[in-house]
Amino acid sequence: MAAKVSPLAPKVFAKLPPLEGVELGTAAAGIKYKGRDDVLVIRLPEGTAAAGVFTTSKTASAPVDLCRANVAGGKGRIVVVNSGNSNAFTGKAGLATVEATVEAAARAVGASRDEVYVASTGVIGQRLDPAPVIDGIGTALFSASTDQWDQAARAIMTTDTFRKLATRKAVIDGVTVTINGIAKGSGMIQPDLATMLAFVVTDAAIPAKILQQLLAESTQTSFNAITVDSDTSTSDTLLLFATGTAMKGADPVANVGDARLRDFRARLDELLLDLAHQVVKDGEGASKFIRVRVAGAESFKAARAIAMTIANSPLVKTAIAGEDANWGRIVMAVGKSGEAADRDRLAIRIGGVDVARNGEAVPGYDETPVARHMKGDDIDIDVDVGVGSGSATVWTCDLTHEYIRINADYRS
Amino acid sequence: MAAKVSPLAPKVFAKLPPLEGVELGTAAAGIKYKGRDDVLVIRLPEGTAAAGVFTTSKTASAPVDLCRANVAGGKGRIVVVNSGNSNAFTGKAGLATVEATVEAAARAVGASRDEVYVASTGVIGQRLDPAPVIDGIGTALFSASTDQWDQAARAIMTTDTFRKLATRKAVIDGVTVTINGIAKGSGMIQPDLATMLAFVVTDAAIPAKILQQLLAESTQTSFNAITVDSDTSTSDTLLLFATGTAMKGADPVANVGDARLRDFRARLDELLLDLAHQVVKDGEGASKFIRVRVAGAESFKAARAIAMTIANSPLVKTAIAGEDANWGRIVMAVGKSGEAADRDRLAIRIGGVDVARNGEAVPGYDETPVARHMKGDDIDIDVDVGVGSGSATVWTCDLTHEYIRINADYRS
Repeated sequence: MAAKVSPLAPKVFAKLPPLEGVELGTAAAGIKYKGRDDVLVIRLPEGTAAAGVFTTSKTASAPVDLCRANVAGGKGRIVVVNSGNSNAFTGKAGLATVEATVEAAARAVGASRDEVYVASTGVIGQRLDPAPVIDGIGTALFSASTDQWDQAARAIMTTDTFRKLATRKAVIDGVTVTINGIAKGSGMIQPDLATMLAFVVTDAAIPAKILQQLLAESTQTSFNAITVDSDTSTSDTLLLFATGTAMKGADPVANVGDARLRDFRARLDELLLDLAHQVVKDGEGASKFIRVRVAGAESFKAARAIAMTIANSPLVKTAIAGEDANWGRIVMAVGKSGEAADRDRLAIRIGGVDVARNGEAVPGYDETPVARHMKGDDIDIDVDVGVGSGSATVWTCDLTHEYIRINADYRS
Repeated sequence: MAAKVSPLAPKVFAKLPPLEGVELGTAAAGIKYKGRDDVLVIRLPEGTAAAGVFTTSKTASAPVDLCRANVAGGKGRIVVVNSGNSNAFTGKAGLATVEATVEAAARAVGASRDEVYVASTGVIGQRLDPAPVIDGIGTALFSASTDQWDQAARAIMTTDTFRKLATRKAVIDGVTVTINGIAKGSGMIQPDLATMLAFVVTDAAIPAKILQQLLAESTQTSFNAITVDSDTSTSDTLLLFATGTAMKGADPVANVGDARLRDFRARLDELLLDLAHQVVKDGEGASKFIRVRVAGAESFKAARAIAMTIANSPLVKTAIAGEDANWGRIVMAVGKSGEAADRDRLAIRIGGVDVARNGEAVPGYDETPVARHMKGDDIDIDVDVGVGSGSATVWTCDLTHEYIRINADYRS
């Protein structure tokens, strides 16, 4: 928490409008941090549909197990989040903490246990005492209101240097609906989610099954297309709730292909990408925001794998930190991905300037405009691997001294 | 080259004995570095058998293509190595440089073109003018002798902070033979070879086909079991030559399973592991030498994948740099590997001390001896993932500020 605010932090934070019946409350339960909120409760109105996507980790935390099970039921009434301790790798005690938390939260709002979601973020492997969390639920609910999105985004921060918020309006069948989202995450970020928690709520009326499909698709090009350090958290959780309050009496959306969902899908994509970009921009030690687009691959999957290999390469990331347009390291990363690539047709553009074509440096390559591009905050890398028509884009940040500083003394 | 010598460098360097007919010569060709040797020539006697293993990169360099082709013929008379420019991703010009080098080297020693090996290491993507290399061959051959192994190891260094040498004696059928090896490499090091060049010569008489099998097997538990930064070079080359001069008139070894090879295999394994460990100990910015052993996996392959995931995790590596026994990050890395693991049976030992068992911290865990272990140079991590009997060991180093310093301004 001592880290200075990321230079890539937004200049202006999004202001999230209230959603009817969606109340947010926070509490300072003293789980790890002193003098700041570390428990968040999101209370949802009856009839809210729930969807979620989670870490692919084989050592997922007990809270993730719970959320995964409850998402199958498709209903949500309350979300309880704590920061400072991830309750991961805590054995039976971890499970007991989740159960006690669920019990208390369900009772507090009169929900059934399968309508409760719990997310924990912070240190792995230390037991999380349920007592302060349960006390926190009470305190948070007592002061909960519909206009505390900003406080909510702050309460879930760990090594984050800024809070992450996004909001969009969408039109479904002539009715304007709102989508609000908050997220946290800055280290342990990699494909298939990240040390990343995100909570998104809309007042649209969308059945849980369809909501789940929308979320799964939209995640592919947002949270699953970012990486900070290639590490995957045991706690990654992205929950999406639809309360339906803005569409009372409207015809329900019948399936995921429904044309009335077109605008909503586009806005949901935008919002998730916005939050995902904020997570990258708060990547531990980040000084550059990097877009890597790979084209000419055998498939989307192959393109994504190559792009991720470039984005995760320590040598590429350190070169960018040093503002060095070292495209030789990009060639190296393409080669190591294991995906098909034609060395002698490979082309690379940096900041829109051709630097390599047909497997070698562009004749008479002038580094001046590229060197200028490297000094900016936003770095664009385009690679064509010359074998097919698959393409994909991923986003990452550079690897700096600050990353080492943060992570060599995070726990102690 | 400005980096200070790795704290893990050997206190005493191995002194390599001469091998009959194996002459080493070096030259300062000024390819990139000023005032130091950057060309190495190894001249081998007639009848020398050749074997080699190479990078798996899909963007391998032109010299790698040449070596791969010539190893198929199984004969070697001369090796030409340059440092400072890897001649990788240099298109047709790169191929032309290799051809010109081969032509000159073959003529200089009266060999045929398929007995010539070329290896280049250094910056990717810059054309390598053959003229200084060819001049260097002449100069190096002029002064070549059997006692210049030390100079040879120095001439191939790039970001290396110390030269890497190893030697072993082995007995085949009552005859004592010698194995000498040199290597370079410190960044871009990862499984399936690395930015790594190694040249090993023995005076044993072993046919090329058998030599190739021995090398491939021995590489699995040495050079393919190390990682510095997960990046894979386009130039990795490990060549093994057998001159036969110590076994004139002896019965040839008939097959790879020949009992007479037992001692030789063990010593070759040792020598390659010795060189591989030296490469890790010169890992860019390394301050700790880390052994990761994974047991209880579904197979050797699964164990190796998990061990590599731990060894490549930036969060694990930075924790070790900070001397923090943060085993939660080890749990995270096990989870992200994608291989089967039983979260609730997972066990972790650090420095021989149980820190976690049955999926949670060991009751009453005392960090004192572990904290002491973390302050040493050699860090031992043992993980049992609780699902099978596959095991594997890999070696790596930590991730420090020095890695960032070296790589954020290597090229410029």
